[in-house]
Amino acid sequence: MTGRVIGVGLGPGDPDLMSVRADRLIRGAATIAYFRKKGRPGRARTAVEGMLRDDVTEVAMEYPVTTEIPLDDPAYNDALAAFYEDVAETLAAQVEAGEEIIVPCEGDPFFYGSFMHLYTRLKDRVRVEVVPAITGMSAAWTATGLPITWGDDVLSVVMATLPEDLLEARFREADALVVMKIGRNMDKVRRALRTAGKYDRAWLVECASMSEECVMTLAQAEGRQVPYFSIVLVHGQGRRP
Amino acid sequence: MTGRVIGVGLGPGDPDLMSVRADRLIRGAATIAYFRKKGRPGRARTAVEGMLRDDVTEVAMEYPVTTEIPLDDPAYNDALAAFYEDVAETLAAQVEAGEEIIVPCEGDPFFYGSFMHLYTRLKDRVRVEVVPAITGMSAAWTATGLPITWGDDVLSVVMATLPEDLLEARFREADALVVMKIGRNMDKVRRALRTAGKYDRAWLVECASMSEECVMTLAQAEGRQVPYFSIVLVHGQGRRP
Ligand SMILES: C[S@@+](CC[C@H](N)C(=O)[O-])C[C@H]1O[C@@H](n2cnc3c(N)ncnc32)[C@H](O)[C@@H]1O
Ligand SMILES: C[S@@+](CC[C@H](N)C(=O)[O-])C[C@H]1O[C@@H](n2cnc3c(N)ncnc32)[C@H](O)[C@@H]1O
Repeated sequence: MTGRVIGVGLGPGDPDLMSVRADRLIRGAATIAYFRKKGRPGRARTAVEGMLRDDVTEVAMEYPVTTEIPLDDPAYNDALAAFYEDVAETLAAQVEAGEEIIVPCEGDPFFYGSFMHLYTRLKDRVRVEVVPAITGMSAAWTATGLPITWGDDVLSVVMATLPEDLLEARFREADALVVMKIGRNMDKVRRALRTAGKYDRAWLVECASMSEECVMTLAQAEGRQVPYFSIVLVHGQGRRP
Repeated sequence: MTGRVIGVGLGPGDPDLMSVRADRLIRGAATIAYFRKKGRPGRARTAVEGMLRDDVTEVAMEYPVTTEIPLDDPAYNDALAAFYEDVAETLAAQVEAGEEIIVPCEGDPFFYGSFMHLYTRLKDRVRVEVVPAITGMSAAWTATGLPITWGDDVLSVVMATLPEDLLEARFREADALVVMKIGRNMDKVRRALRTAGKYDRAWLVECASMSEECVMTLAQAEGRQVPYFSIVLVHGQGRRP
């Protein structure tokens, strides 16, 4: 009985930034299971392209809904919950049969990751391990060529999906700021940064550490359509010798 | 003219959690330079023990002061600034002579790291690159077996060196919380967590991912002396399907 699920953080995108452990686990995997939207290759699957064994067994865990139902509709939550229950059931059965299943995850699995929803449903049933990874935000601030936090700076990590008034309050109080899940919330993020007096110091990093990486000030990005992998950040100005 | 300095993030401690790039750079280094306190082996140097080439050239950058002068004495800042100027001068001269110098850094270099002080003094003179890494906090929340952030949770990263009233305010407003630089500030952190109503949900992780790793609730750690590598965290409770 050696079965287990391992949620393996892949890091920000550049395969050279995977951990030694992640690299080894992905290359050696007999079975991998990954989330994706129906009809898409899947970001986690794309990230491990070229690393997998020829005889690997692949399990695509396909989201039933994405943008069809609004996020705040309870039906959205119900559909997702049923989906996670369902894939947890499938994976648990395989693990109970002795399989080791590698689940490649974008960035760090326990940091706003979808793996967490599977994890909570599996952890009391079967053995589940997690391999931490470099977050997208670490690659993003590294790409700007400026340290994110100094001295006693408070770093606030804020999701752009929050209502505008909350964004504004969070932006105002932050010393250093990372804003994720930008997507269609960009205009709201811009307005809240302006009101909070941080717009002029804000940067946009798209696809940090990937071949498509783009780094610019937010002012330079006026009118730009941003990809899924986008982070807005404001560097801290804390005490330094 | 191929000289450069590369600040290489080592990650949280476990060598298996170094990035593939960091592992390659450390093992191939002709020259490494690392910070340490006088008379100590140095944490970054210890982390790469057993990985270095036999013929590696080592440059120990030894801090002139640590605890002798109080942190808020301007003399502390002056002594540190002079030290960083001095080591920057030495490294710049070596790089100008064509050397590649690897600087191993704890965790992610641009996240509250000492390398930042060298970086700002070098970057307009010579080529400097930075390799991001898994942060100590990622290893810490992974060690607790609980995801740190869900849905729209705001994550606040706060240094225990802040005054108690500020700690309290920051703790109160955070959804998910990471407290670093604990050291002798533990009692202050406990009191501020209590006042902010988060004490009962707080965890302590010592030496995340290292062989000495210890995970417990903060309540269980009452009266405990904590090592340098200690993080207190409170998990977010955000929306989840
Ligand atoms: C659901 S969260 C997952 C975060 C991931 N677990 C991590 O550790 O970075 C997805 C968000 O992460 C951010 N992100 C992750 N990787 C990124 C990268 N390489 N470049 C830019 N943004 C990234 C984007 O803001 C995206 O909306
Ligand atoms: C000067 S900061 C450097 C942070 C580092 N650059 C990083 O990315 O984690 C030092 C603090 O990081 C935290 N820390 C770093 N690595 C840790 C680990 N493996 N376990 C626990 N705490 C850690 C401790 O709170 C320590 O006081």
